[in-house]
Amino acid sequence: MRKNVRVGTHLDPAIAARLRRNDDGLVAAIVREHGTGDVLMMAWMDDEALHRTLTTGLATYWSRSRKEYWVKGATSGHYQHVRSVALDCDGDALLLSVDQEGAACHTGTHSCFSDVLKAAE
Amino acid sequence: MRKNVRVGTHLDPAIAARLRRNDDGLVAAIVREHGTGDVLMMAWMDDEALHRTLTTGLATYWSRSRKEYWVKGATSGHYQHVRSVALDCDGDALLLSVDQEGAACHTGTHSCFSDVLKAAE
Repeated sequence: MRKNVRVGTHLDPAIAARLRRNDDGLVAAIVREHGTGDVLMMAWMDDEALHRTLTTGLATYWSRSRKEYWVKGATSGHYQHVRSVALDCDGDALLLSVDQEGAACHTGTHSCFSDVLKAAE
Repeated sequence: MRKNVRVGTHLDPAIAARLRRNDDGLVAAIVREHGTGDVLMMAWMDDEALHRTLTTGLATYWSRSRKEYWVKGATSGHYQHVRSVALDCDGDALLLSVDQEGAACHTGTHSCFSDVLKAAE
């Protein structure tokens, strides 16, 4: 068994072969809103979360704190309907374009990136 | 000494206190082009890389492979002039808005996210 590949996933092997996972078997997932172009959040996926995202059309992550799959919106209703998914050049980050229902952030804000360290010039 | 805080940084302690670093002392940095809104790349920063980014206005990362600070563009000329920086709600990801000189990706493409796994609907 290869290190960092979770068993039992149905992810297309041709895609799985292009992923470069971290020590926890995860790749980063950057989420961008289709209509506005706003970057909403970043979360993490293992192979199976990516498989579910690609096949169900609902953004599905691996929760590092809860150690479980997490369909974004399953409890909040704030689902992310996935329009496209791209992988970066070194295989360790995904970019999702989504239609976001409600607020993306669990704090209730549109985007998770609301703590401004340097304001726009 | 606190775990995961690199010594010798001059990062504002008020900002440093809000970062939630991974086991390597790093936070993710998502880079977005100001003019187009395109997501260009993802890289990593430690406290000092963030300090240098905020104070020089040039995006500066920590290279995990080379184990050194990396001013984006220092060798390629493809500098990133930083307009704004925001931190996400759980402190482990930054969003930079930049003016990008040339191609963001080392492969020569505009964005690193050019491997389409699911095409836009």
